[in-house]
Amino acid sequence: MEILGGPLYAVAGAGESHGPAVTTIVYGCPPGIYLRAAEIQRHLDRRRPGSNKHGTPRREDDTVVLLSGLYQQDHDRLSAGPALTVAAGDRLSQTTGYAEGYTTGEPVAAIVLSTAKKSADYQQFVGPMGEVRPGHTDLVKYYKSRGFVDPRGGGRSSYRSTISDVIGGAIARIVLREHFGTAILSSICQVGPLQASQTLAGRVQSMLQASNNQPIAAAAIHDLEVAMEAAEIYTLDDAFASAAGELIKRTRIDGDSIGAAVEVVALNVPPLAGDPLYQSLKVRIMGVLGGLHAVQGVEIGAGFAVVARRGSENNDPIRAAGYQANSHGGLIGGITTGMPLVFRVGFKPTSTIAKPQQSVRKNLEEIDFQLRKGRHDPCVGVRAGVTLESRVAIELLNAVLMHQAQAIDVENFRLFGG
Amino acid sequence: MEILGGPLYAVAGAGESHGPAVTTIVYGCPPGIYLRAAEIQRHLDRRRPGSNKHGTPRREDDTVVLLSGLYQQDHDRLSAGPALTVAAGDRLSQTTGYAEGYTTGEPVAAIVLSTAKKSADYQQFVGPMGEVRPGHTDLVKYYKSRGFVDPRGGGRSSYRSTISDVIGGAIARIVLREHFGTAILSSICQVGPLQASQTLAGRVQSMLQASNNQPIAAAAIHDLEVAMEAAEIYTLDDAFASAAGELIKRTRIDGDSIGAAVEVVALNVPPLAGDPLYQSLKVRIMGVLGGLHAVQGVEIGAGFAVVARRGSENNDPIRAAGYQANSHGGLIGGITTGMPLVFRVGFKPTSTIAKPQQSVRKNLEEIDFQLRKGRHDPCVGVRAGVTLESRVAIELLNAVLMHQAQAIDVENFRLFGG
Amino acid sequence: MEILGGPLYAVAGAGESHGPAVTTIVYGCPPGIYLRAAEIQRHLDRRRPGSNKHGTPRREDDTVVLLSGLYQQDHDRLSAGPALTVAAGDRLSQTTGYAEGYTTGEPVAAIVLSTAKKSADYQQFVGPMGEVRPGHTDLVKYYKSRGFVDPRGGGRSSYRSTISDVIGGAIARIVLREHFGTAILSSICQVGPLQASQTLAGRVQSMLQASNNQPIAAAAIHDLEVAMEAAEIYTLDDAFASAAGELIKRTRIDGDSIGAAVEVVALNVPPLAGDPLYQSLKVRIMGVLGGLHAVQGVEIGAGFAVVARRGSENNDPIRAAGYQANSHGGLIGGITTGMPLVFRVGFKPTSTIAKPQQSVRKNLEEIDFQLRKGRHDPCVGVRAGVTLESRVAIELLNAVLMHQAQAIDVENFRLFGG
Amino acid sequence: MEILGGPLYAVAGAGESHGPAVTTIVYGCPPGIYLRAAEIQRHLDRRRPGSNKHGTPRREDDTVVLLSGLYQQDHDRLSAGPALTVAAGDRLSQTTGYAEGYTTGEPVAAIVLSTAKKSADYQQFVGPMGEVRPGHTDLVKYYKSRGFVDPRGGGRSSYRSTISDVIGGAIARIVLREHFGTAILSSICQVGPLQASQTLAGRVQSMLQASNNQPIAAAAIHDLEVAMEAAEIYTLDDAFASAAGELIKRTRIDGDSIGAAVEVVALNVPPLAGDPLYQSLKVRIMGVLGGLHAVQGVEIGAGFAVVARRGSENNDPIRAAGYQANSHGGLIGGITTGMPLVFRVGFKPTSTIAKPQQSVRKNLEEIDFQLRKGRHDPCVGVRAGVTLESRVAIELLNAVLMHQAQAIDVENFRLFGG
Repeated sequence: MEILGGPLYAVAGAGESHGPAVTTIVYGCPPGIYLRAAEIQRHLDRRRPGSNKHGTPRREDDTVVLLSGLYQQDHDRLSAGPALTVAAGDRLSQTTGYAEGYTTGEPVAAIVLSTAKKSADYQQFVGPMGEVRPGHTDLVKYYKSRGFVDPRGGGRSSYRSTISDVIGGAIARIVLREHFGTAILSSICQVGPLQASQTLAGRVQSMLQASNNQPIAAAAIHDLEVAMEAAEIYTLDDAFASAAGELIKRTRIDGDSIGAAVEVVALNVPPLAGDPLYQSLKVRIMGVLGGLHAVQGVEIGAGFAVVARRGSENNDPIRAAGYQANSHGGLIGGITTGMPLVFRVGFKPTSTIAKPQQSVRKNLEEIDFQLRKGRHDPCVGVRAGVTLESRVAIELLNAVLMHQAQAIDVENFRLFGG
Repeated sequence: MEILGGPLYAVAGAGESHGPAVTTIVYGCPPGIYLRAAEIQRHLDRRRPGSNKHGTPRREDDTVVLLSGLYQQDHDRLSAGPALTVAAGDRLSQTTGYAEGYTTGEPVAAIVLSTAKKSADYQQFVGPMGEVRPGHTDLVKYYKSRGFVDPRGGGRSSYRSTISDVIGGAIARIVLREHFGTAILSSICQVGPLQASQTLAGRVQSMLQASNNQPIAAAAIHDLEVAMEAAEIYTLDDAFASAAGELIKRTRIDGDSIGAAVEVVALNVPPLAGDPLYQSLKVRIMGVLGGLHAVQGVEIGAGFAVVARRGSENNDPIRAAGYQANSHGGLIGGITTGMPLVFRVGFKPTSTIAKPQQSVRKNLEEIDFQLRKGRHDPCVGVRAGVTLESRVAIELLNAVLMHQAQAIDVENFRLFGG
Repeated sequence: MEILGGPLYAVAGAGESHGPAVTTIVYGCPPGIYLRAAEIQRHLDRRRPGSNKHGTPRREDDTVVLLSGLYQQDHDRLSAGPALTVAAGDRLSQTTGYAEGYTTGEPVAAIVLSTAKKSADYQQFVGPMGEVRPGHTDLVKYYKSRGFVDPRGGGRSSYRSTISDVIGGAIARIVLREHFGTAILSSICQVGPLQASQTLAGRVQSMLQASNNQPIAAAAIHDLEVAMEAAEIYTLDDAFASAAGELIKRTRIDGDSIGAAVEVVALNVPPLAGDPLYQSLKVRIMGVLGGLHAVQGVEIGAGFAVVARRGSENNDPIRAAGYQANSHGGLIGGITTGMPLVFRVGFKPTSTIAKPQQSVRKNLEEIDFQLRKGRHDPCVGVRAGVTLESRVAIELLNAVLMHQAQAIDVENFRLFGG
Repeated sequence: MEILGGPLYAVAGAGESHGPAVTTIVYGCPPGIYLRAAEIQRHLDRRRPGSNKHGTPRREDDTVVLLSGLYQQDHDRLSAGPALTVAAGDRLSQTTGYAEGYTTGEPVAAIVLSTAKKSADYQQFVGPMGEVRPGHTDLVKYYKSRGFVDPRGGGRSSYRSTISDVIGGAIARIVLREHFGTAILSSICQVGPLQASQTLAGRVQSMLQASNNQPIAAAAIHDLEVAMEAAEIYTLDDAFASAAGELIKRTRIDGDSIGAAVEVVALNVPPLAGDPLYQSLKVRIMGVLGGLHAVQGVEIGAGFAVVARRGSENNDPIRAAGYQANSHGGLIGGITTGMPLVFRVGFKPTSTIAKPQQSVRKNLEEIDFQLRKGRHDPCVGVRAGVTLESRVAIELLNAVLMHQAQAIDVENFRLFGG
């Protein structure tokens, strides 16, 4: 099953890159949270290709339509979402999506139509004589599906599927913010060989040291977001942003692509969330970040740097106000310590490039592969941040609910006098 | 999570009775099955209120729109489904649903808009002073959601949610029919005190005895369906159908409601499907049938009648051609024997009635409850058959895939020369 | 996976009827519950064949050994359980099981050795020429496993597997009792054609009416248990117990077996537990009761009797103190109402009988089957009560935790000053 | 739930570091696989502390006792496992574990007694005044369990829990080897700042290039294992092994600890296994490797090195015989390509060190922490290889079964003539 998170907070997704729509169902959002479609839309707009200066020029207009799970007494505001029409022959159905309301505790469903598909671009890949794009899923999915794959794009393996991640993540963020003031940010920290000299994890650690581990104020979080939004690419380091933007531009002109690395940091994280072992929050987050399309490496806290260390330098000292360092990255034994969750994720260069490459047809006949049409991101990492953030939010909220489940409070089980 | 079936074939649902739409995602349909939206629509039309002579007069027009998971080379036929439009301010997105194609193995999503809701009908139930309909979920859901429930209807507890069951079941039926010729039928066998004298299970057992357990031909199955479709209510017994139809009519006029019982029978069932114990097919099907809204009893095979029997009369004799009787109802040890799956399900009378009743407001103040508006089925059982069939289909297909998984065939794992 | 309950409170089981041991792992018991192995043992002793006057004479000595998940400072009391020795050649390992302690929140594992197996009894069933016992899983499991089944007994399909149910249920009962005073009882209500005239559900309903729905005191619950324990078979109705005991005895002498029905009633049930739809508590409990070995029917509340009723007589009136009747059986919309959970379960006569029957060998050659050796219960229903109670306890606790998870309390997420 | 893998092949574990035993249940092993306890024991012996020259001197004798799921006609060989005795007062139960037999398809359970615990070592950590070991789970687990944690060790967070991983992995390897000739190896590639100059992934890639992607012969695999077994630490690079062994020794003398990195490589991997997206094999393996205790980074294929690359150098060329390079590490789109699975895992230095550190008591009072007793691995990475291999095996077999499930073959559903 295509389920992200769970068993308590879970996001079910469907919809391939060139299908009519991406469909999302979010399970387990507690009742009583005020949701606005506009806030979900804001995150989706960050995810959208073309939303940044260096993404793919392919234009998609990803309007989210919320179809269930909200309510409020003011029906006009509740139902002020997009108008939705289904016309089947002479049968016409019409309704409007939800715009804002309180969650009822029942599942929240959403669709995002796909309208930008140009099937003509994909003739090169159709059937047993179809060509295989190196680095793509074309070949394995063709054989896995016994030839029944949709050859027009990557199907579920397409980056478009992450619309569901972002919707589910947006709702999780709202719940976490409301209860704990949690915020989840990301910052690009490497593009090709260029590395940022200022990191988000470093900046946050300084803020915590200055305040002796006090929660980080909403205003300070907002400032970080504004700074990254304003940069040439989504990062804290302005100089790096300009150089990286330039490098991406040059790479695109070369008909080539380039890798990138992204930091993800969660602030004001509730401690004590996470199961101990096989389904620990570390297992879960390392999986959803490390398993995202195009990712080839993931680190927590100090990451691979710890390999070269001794224990005496690596163990984070503990004082009454909390941990004095964050080599551990916010999880010990798979349980949140209250320190920021810190991850770093490495993306390969986008597989789709204009340069010729050795490849095969689906029938394994050897060819010199040359992409005929279609334009893609030269650097998939530059818009992946919002997806990474979303996946962390989903897993963190699920872990919070798992921990809460263990603390039975009889006050929650009252109906009549009982 | 609102998941029916699984872990291999699973149906995720969302959407409350008065929300914009019911959303469904079907996971685990194997690739290469030819699906037509029209065939799914045919099952949905059986489920729809107003689709029979004795259902609620409330008119819904449940057009299914398939949003993912299909493909075929003829894009015109693939994309000949309903036109789907989203208008948000000046942003307009448009696409069409899938009409027919091969499953790709990726999830199949569908939406069905809800357009018949009249919120004005529900003022009686709103807020802490809202009245509680006896037999309804109003009270428990109000407290469970800490007051954030949608009071306009039953939310997910509404019968409308079973749209997802029917969509998921329709796809499962197609897979089962294609591989095994399986068909899943139902027949109403009791309404109030009136009992059918001809049962579906009995008819099928006669057919098997006559043919010494040969598979039942598609034409014979079709004849059964035609006969039931033609009757006053969906049942094999014509005389019973007329009497029961009359009884339902009289009950409605009385402002009251009445119970019913329904048989569900699966024919040409593949043997050896089903896990042994805690997730056995018997656990699974007894649960999804016995746990459906308004159901208060469920039996397999000879059901409660076996309590009064001795083993020497109850054990089904076995000959080389198969079991000579079907007291066991098609499952032994939770595993299919190849005999028909036979279940019988008892529904309570619809809770919503026009007669006055003792009840409370949500704040527990006592009242004499009198329904103000809204019309409902006097006999919920008469259109439940398609939902019961669907749930059996979903669980059976999942069990088939579970069994298939254990038989590793290296031929399914070839890519290059390997 | 052989998992009962879950995802929050779950019982994993392993071990076939003639293997070395039955192994159980209980997941999700909250920390801080004081557990005693002796209390688990008391429930296991009720389950054990030979523990009643009418069970199988085969003697098993089911000593539970707790292997994990407990702790207390007094290590002597903690580790006062049975001595456990493993001798492998010259390597000898020794430890002791836990006797009592607080749950730590980590999984509780237990083993129960199987020592009463006599393999010689089973030569009749071995290999492709092995004979098939009508009503048993012999045939389907032989083919499902491609011949690799353990022919000595029913494997996991044996009643012995329910040791895991009882262990998991015993722990769930302790948690539910500690928080809510919940108790789960059962009473045999029919054996063959003989029906009890006093039912447990009826008795409990009288108690609630007399007290206007006050919780039932522990002493009153204890009295019910004592009365049932003292009877000839486990039931509230003494006269019925004597007659039924006599009938079972006669049936055994005839070389035959007989069916039975059992009521299961949970008292002092926390309201608001249970999910709405596909995983509702009704789906879950109807499944685990209706899917148990040998069960062919299950009812909730008034059961199939509701089919013949009108809504005006079936809807339970509601007053400020609670529901005034319990036709609904404690669940509305799959959510607990605080009324007793009431189920009735119908068991077929034990399949194994001494009388000759028509059957086949595993290769499908027809035979007149005559059991050579082995003695079994003539009436499987008479000792099934504790298993039914256990399954209800497991599902109810899981539903309680699911509901609790939705009520985030930031007090449960404090570590440092935060 | 503590479940590794699943839903088809899954390993359930229980047992804390200082409890009586570690309990394991393996679900979903197909029937008909010949298992020997001795082969499982061989993997466990690699895992055991003291099994190598640089592990903890604490001596454990981890004899596996198989308790279910096997059968063969020769009962003497089947039941030739360790003698198992339970003595509870005057009740004595005795049986023997399984030594070898065919899997029946039912769950395989195993226990391993824990006998080496010395509780006296742990007084320092008990109760609210108990001291917190920096880098350990002491603090979070104390608060998470509301004080009910077992303070004697890490509970489930202890490395001892991985006994279940190794048992489940051993069985998965046997299934994979039998069907596909798959082998899963690991090699230590870094200790502190010392890096191996020969890598396992590199060696394997050379072998594939030399043979144009032919499967690697069992003899060649055996040679690799023998070479690594013989080295000072488990690695292909002899010179590195000696230097690293020396470094570990010096670190131990310093009362300190040191990090390490380990490669894991699966050979002769069946292609086409793995789901596409949220539960892709990449998500799953990155999670179980990256989420293991003490791990802070995980890479697939070329790992973080791809960040600095261009697409034209990173895309692996494809020829008729297969991929000509393995930057992708054996998974594209989360699906196996048939190329070796290649992972690299970075471990932090063991948290437990003899040097003094800043810490707190559980009540958050600040202390200078000095470990009183207990000896531990100075370099946890050096014996982690077998656990990493096991986790890959479990997930890979589960993915194989998931893929097989989609290919329905009616031949697997035959019983009578049908």
